Amino acid sequence: MFESAELGHKICKETWKKEVPTLREALLDAQLDLFQSKKFPVIILIAGVDCAGKGETVSLLNEWLDPRHVETHAVRDLTEEELERPEMWRYWRVLPPKGKIGVFIGTWYSNPLIENVYGTIKNAELDQRLERILHFEKMLCDEGALVLKFWLHLSQDQQKKRLKLLESDEKTRWRVTARDWEHYKLYDKFRKVSERMLRTTSTAEAPWTIVEGSDPRYRYMTIGKAIASSIRLRLDASEAQSHEVAVPPILAAIDNLLILQTLDMSKSLKKDVYKSELEKFQGKLNLLTRNPEFKKISVVVAFEGNDAAGKGGSIRRIIQALDARQYRVIPVASPTEEERAQPYMWRFWRNIPRRSRFAIFDRTWYGRVLVERVEGCCEQNDWMRAYGEINDFEEQMVRNRTVVVKFWLSITKDEQLRRFKEREKIGFKRYKITDEDWRNRDKWDKYEGAVCDMIDRTSTEIAPWTLVEANDKYYARIKVLKTVCEQIEKALKK
Amino acid sequence: MFESAELGHKICKETWKKEVPTLREALLDAQLDLFQSKKFPVIILIAGVDCAGKGETVSLLNEWLDPRHVETHAVRDLTEEELERPEMWRYWRVLPPKGKIGVFIGTWYSNPLIENVYGTIKNAELDQRLERILHFEKMLCDEGALVLKFWLHLSQDQQKKRLKLLESDEKTRWRVTARDWEHYKLYDKFRKVSERMLRTTSTAEAPWTIVEGSDPRYRYMTIGKAIASSIRLRLDASEAQSHEVAVPPILAAIDNLLILQTLDMSKSLKKDVYKSELEKFQGKLNLLTRNPEFKKISVVVAFEGNDAAGKGGSIRRIIQALDARQYRVIPVASPTEEERAQPYMWRFWRNIPRRSRFAIFDRTWYGRVLVERVEGCCEQNDWMRAYGEINDFEEQMVRNRTVVVKFWLSITKDEQLRRFKEREKIGFKRYKITDEDWRNRDKWDKYEGAVCDMIDRTSTEIAPWTLVEANDKYYARIKVLKTVCEQIEKALKK
Repeated sequence: MFESAELGHKICKETWKKEVPTLREALLDAQLDLFQSKKFPVIILIAGVDCAGKGETVSLLNEWLDPRHVETHAVRDLTEEELERPEMWRYWRVLPPKGKIGVFIGTWYSNPLIENVYGTIKNAELDQRLERILHFEKMLCDEGALVLKFWLHLSQDQQKKRLKLLESDEKTRWRVTARDWEHYKLYDKFRKVSERMLRTTSTAEAPWTIVEGSDPRYRYMTIGKAIASSIRLRLDASEAQSHEVAVPPILAAIDNLLILQTLDMSKSLKKDVYKSELEKFQGKLNLLTRNPEFKKISVVVAFEGNDAAGKGGSIRRIIQALDARQYRVIPVASPTEEERAQPYMWRFWRNIPRRSRFAIFDRTWYGRVLVERVEGCCEQNDWMRAYGEINDFEEQMVRNRTVVVKFWLSITKDEQLRRFKEREKIGFKRYKITDEDWRNRDKWDKYEGAVCDMIDRTSTEIAPWTLVEANDKYYARIKVLKTVCEQIEKALKK
Repeated sequence: MFESAELGHKICKETWKKEVPTLREALLDAQLDLFQSKKFPVIILIAGVDCAGKGETVSLLNEWLDPRHVETHAVRDLTEEELERPEMWRYWRVLPPKGKIGVFIGTWYSNPLIENVYGTIKNAELDQRLERILHFEKMLCDEGALVLKFWLHLSQDQQKKRLKLLESDEKTRWRVTARDWEHYKLYDKFRKVSERMLRTTSTAEAPWTIVEGSDPRYRYMTIGKAIASSIRLRLDASEAQSHEVAVPPILAAIDNLLILQTLDMSKSLKKDVYKSELEKFQGKLNLLTRNPEFKKISVVVAFEGNDAAGKGGSIRRIIQALDARQYRVIPVASPTEEERAQPYMWRFWRNIPRRSRFAIFDRTWYGRVLVERVEGCCEQNDWMRAYGEINDFEEQMVRNRTVVVKFWLSITKDEQLRRFKEREKIGFKRYKITDEDWRNRDKWDKYEGAVCDMIDRTSTEIAPWTLVEANDKYYARIKVLKTVCEQIEKALKK
């Protein structure tokens, strides 16, 4: 894999002088068009062997590009706020919006590589982590990002030469650390693991480009040209080309038996039972949040359900048991301008809670496979891949000790009609029924189908859906509270 | 001051039962109108004596209000990211946008109070900190926020009773800490300092409401009613009313001598001198950033100047000396939707760098007193108060060990014409001159006046303006680099 990058590639001074001005113009030109069109974000990854010139390359890129629309990131100096969230949160929070360029040095590839070389993680775990990276990069590409990955390579001899050269000049001596020499001694191991890593993560949408690192001019020019031409190519591509993948349709069960239809909608609770259960489970929930172990976890509660199914009421019963400082209720409405310039999941990532906090979502990331699917607000491709991205998102939270509790509040069509009419009678406008509510109701069957597909595809062992029979509000609220308590209890025991 | 809050105010159960439903409806109604109109943000501060029921009041408010549009914050668990920024950054980052409600428990009043009672800070410093709070709240009010401040009061006897009561019940025992008893012993001291604090910070726009805390029903209903009626009142107020303050005009010096006219625009550097100076100061800057002390400071560089004065070129010369991971260049363009829902300074606060990082602004928070003033994009009131808010902002950064370096790059009208024409000749579109550039040029004199006012009002000892004679690019770039070095050096010595 590295053979071609050990041939001693070089660019002579004359060629450099002749070609650089054109290259810079092409880069700036592409960058300006990108910025003005705001068509897509560009994510440039510069990784590779130690001292192969990653930092210098990035510095030069920053010089060649318009610095106002590029931002550079590296994995280091992780803050507490980052350490409390899933591993990928730190990247999500700095993803470039459409029209901008983000340069990442090493980043998501650094840790898995180093940890495997040093034996901290076995190959099996390395593979798992690479798998997650693949998912992440696939999501970026699916969302339209241009992902360019460069690996700077040096042969062992070249690396040694380079280290010695840096050490011999007092201006650059500080760059060579004891760790660099240590890595040098592990060269073979690094080479082997890197090869495995590059092989696994070189995909059609986001392939690696291996660049020989020994000659700076060759390195800079190769990367510069690749960036300029890739951006230009993508800018010139028609919209159509990017959405070519044909997705097979989801087939309904041939007997038309849907999971929602198996719910016993007559379940109910008497008022006095409700009152005592409410006190019991709210007390329990409050106690759980004061358990010392609670400081190590966080909780995400996701509410979906039919219109008028009582999401708001259930949320109220949860927060009554909590300290107001430890939760946020997040109503999911149409995305803001900043959110629209980012991948679909970005606005949920930005709301992942810190340790010992709750984030309660009133409507959620499932909007894409529910309302957006039914109303045709997004392509089939988009909502089909959303299932995978959602599972990914939840899995990462759970791995980071976030308890993910998901509720579908289900009412029958008749009960909904009754509640709509009741609300229309009440003068108080908070409960006014909008035309949209009536329109959604017309599409009841389509929504039901989408809900069942959603449950089939996203009710996982780590983040199962709890279906709540909500025709009776008392029954529903207690089921919600009880489930939240149970899932937190389970997490505290881990 | 506290006399009226020791009268033993009470609300009986019957009144409570009768009035609460109306109150809740009024609250929800006001909140919904607020959310839909997105007219202004509401900031509710709940402060007061220990165990006077701050937490319970906030919990009830959260129950009464629609929890999707309220968020509660407290000062505690400060993160590293917060500790690295000026003290008020933690509040700026969680300010509610227009249409939402933010509830703050204690927050900006807690620390000054406690520190003064415990003798950590003297009265003089207390006054300084209260002065800053006044500025902050004034800014919020000027930006249209509704700021409601409630102080829950208990007499010493009541406080003792309350502590004993809480301790006697095993469900509430955990709420009473050793610290609470310690504060109880310091009751008189607390009372004295609180009084001073309330007196100083009760302003016409954001007055304190002192509420007797011993009877929960009285406490809840007083605060609930005050919130509902204040929001309603403001919603119903006409736009005109809020902008009534008449601002006296800024007078130009009667001899028309402006500071910009005193610059010697013939200053220049020969190319060879430039080259050696460039190397010298870039080397110096790089060394400074590797000084161990640099980890304790951060740097904000602000660029303003005539169009085509060479801001971009100067920024490039700075970043060439830096590690790409340690700076961000922030181009100031029109605010995003999220930024428009916040006070004017919010988008600059959100970009304050962490320790050992640079934030380089290409155009800045001075936009309000330059382009917005000249083009009439904001009221005179708004840009007039901006001077104070800007000085405040910079002062807070400097106090937090952020080096603030501000440049005005000045070119003559003739030189600008020459550069515009030159740029028009170059085919490469990056340098295309827009119609707006020509339009701005027509208002040259107005801009010049605004610049001089800006310098007069915001060139402070802690964050002085550096006026750069930029007709000669070489001279300008070196002056910029040299100034940045000098100011960092000065800060490192502190």
